[in-house]
Amino acid sequence: MNPEPVRIAIDAMGGDHGPKVIVPGAALALEERPDLAFLLFGDEKSIRPHLARYPKLAARATVHHTDVAVRMDDKPSQALRSGRRTSSMWLAIEAVKKNAADVAVSAGNTGALMAMAKTCLRTLPDIDRPAIAGLWPTMRGNSVVLDLGATIGADADQLVDLAIMGAAMAEIILGIDHPTVGLLNIGVEEVKGLEEIKKASKLLRESALPTLDYHGFVEGDDIPKGTVDVVVTEGFTGNIALKTAEGTAKQIAQYLREALGRTLLSRIGYFLARGALAALKDKIDPRKVNGGVFLGLEGIVVKSHGGADDVATARAITIGHITARNDLLSKTKAQLALAHAARRSLKMLEAAGGPEPAASAS
Amino acid sequence: MNPEPVRIAIDAMGGDHGPKVIVPGAALALEERPDLAFLLFGDEKSIRPHLARYPKLAARATVHHTDVAVRMDDKPSQALRSGRRTSSMWLAIEAVKKNAADVAVSAGNTGALMAMAKTCLRTLPDIDRPAIAGLWPTMRGNSVVLDLGATIGADADQLVDLAIMGAAMAEIILGIDHPTVGLLNIGVEEVKGLEEIKKASKLLRESALPTLDYHGFVEGDDIPKGTVDVVVTEGFTGNIALKTAEGTAKQIAQYLREALGRTLLSRIGYFLARGALAALKDKIDPRKVNGGVFLGLEGIVVKSHGGADDVATARAITIGHITARNDLLSKTKAQLALAHAARRSLKMLEAAGGPEPAASAS
Repeated sequence: MNPEPVRIAIDAMGGDHGPKVIVPGAALALEERPDLAFLLFGDEKSIRPHLARYPKLAARATVHHTDVAVRMDDKPSQALRSGRRTSSMWLAIEAVKKNAADVAVSAGNTGALMAMAKTCLRTLPDIDRPAIAGLWPTMRGNSVVLDLGATIGADADQLVDLAIMGAAMAEIILGIDHPTVGLLNIGVEEVKGLEEIKKASKLLRESALPTLDYHGFVEGDDIPKGTVDVVVTEGFTGNIALKTAEGTAKQIAQYLREALGRTLLSRIGYFLARGALAALKDKIDPRKVNGGVFLGLEGIVVKSHGGADDVATARAITIGHITARNDLLSKTKAQLALAHAARRSLKMLEAAGGPEPAASAS
Repeated sequence: MNPEPVRIAIDAMGGDHGPKVIVPGAALALEERPDLAFLLFGDEKSIRPHLARYPKLAARATVHHTDVAVRMDDKPSQALRSGRRTSSMWLAIEAVKKNAADVAVSAGNTGALMAMAKTCLRTLPDIDRPAIAGLWPTMRGNSVVLDLGATIGADADQLVDLAIMGAAMAEIILGIDHPTVGLLNIGVEEVKGLEEIKKASKLLRESALPTLDYHGFVEGDDIPKGTVDVVVTEGFTGNIALKTAEGTAKQIAQYLREALGRTLLSRIGYFLARGALAALKDKIDPRKVNGGVFLGLEGIVVKSHGGADDVATARAITIGHITARNDLLSKTKAQLALAHAARRSLKMLEAAGGPEPAASAS
């Protein structure tokens, strides 16, 4: 076991359920990963009764009281006005900034969390806009997809940065060395408006980044197929794709329930197959992939689903644990720094009239 | 029965299978809708043997020979170079332009078909860029979603035009009077980059168009939920959403097959429930919603899926039949003309210093 614990700062008031789900979730995560320690931010009176039920967790957690909590329907600007420096969400993020914690986890509203994370932690050098990366269950396992909605639009350089950050995350969380990366695109090639995506593709191909294997363009159906380990797109499309897929899964699950409940025979069939169907339910269980990782900031923040239960909360904490234990932040920074240095050199060469022709091998 | 038949010009060489699927598909459509007549474009020697098997269809069809066929992997520019005025795809579209047919149907490649349709038919007045609209099966029935990939990006006026065209299609194909329309957006509201969507929303709300009921923003999961009858988005996002949903449906179907085949009990369960599961399969059968309608052109073109079988081909022809019988084109043109006239008046007023204040009601 590692000597130093991974310290998770938790916004205990975030999400639809607050401490009554977040505290058990932390306890569950600690069962799986005993090298965790917790800083719980929020209303002490609400947190303590739940914490009392988990003595092991209580021994590994400190409670940091605050009256202020960001509401699920607060707009980002509202949250910043009313909760900056005071809310449980802000304080959890600030613990990372002050190096009192390694990762912050919150199930609070995404917009507010991102606004606070950006304001408090700041973006990495040469990164204007952060991204949210998530795990997406596919026919082949899991892929990393980003950006899931932090930033709308992306130019070619920003798409390349997303590829680098997503590859670092896939390596660390999925354990895939040299992951394959695809740029999300549509099939019709000769349509105007794809200049940035085409340019990003060219950059990824030519730069031959050492940490990833650039596959080329992928289409929407390649995400569930698991064609690549990392799917890169800007945040508007990524968010629409994610929610459309979630909605489609629910739609088919409902159809299945209706179909199996319709006749006596189908109900008997359902009864006999219920074990297999439970395995199916487990396989498409969205709780297992809970935890969107904010990338591009000077610190790691994990967004847990607002409706997350204890199992899903534990999963988001586990994601945080893995990113911290494997130092996702330092690796990402190093890889981005290399790529940005190469980019700057290339641009200087271009400005000076193009790169020198390579000396031919004798 | 209507005295005048609906004349369908078919690219008999389009798609993965050509005449051997397209001719039976036309025969099937004719069974359902006897007021159809067909112009079949393509290689006569390939078409005739299939046609001979369907005497009823043969009596309602003319064959127009051409040696040239657009390949499924031709780029749009290639297709135009090699197939303009000569290919079965072009000739089917041209039949609409010459008023020899009411609708063109092709299972050929989307990019080539759109390029030829645009070149041959031209866009409607004040419409720069056409759209592809499709039916999307939802928990509530079917919705119309557009643009599914014809045009990347859209400004506010173009999004409003998509709303008008989509509503006309929903009224005619889904039989919904005054359909509800939603603009696809992401949940985080205060993110930069949504100006055009926000502006379109304001325009749709303020203009109170007589043919539709503007609902507001919808998110990705609202498409499968069927929250609105018409979902409006630009073509990049629409295409990604469509393919992601198709891929997700396949992914879950595969999980289900695997789960039900795993144990003896589950296989018995599957056997007993097979009727219900067949009904489920039928419900999510993509063939039933085959047929993307090209909107914004001076003529209606229906894109059938490249891999469509006879049933799916018949469905695309039926979509063409309904649009022609109910004169989607004239209705769309009239509604767009009204909206554009209002838009121009508004812009003139704005240029002249803003609209006059309305007289207060006494």
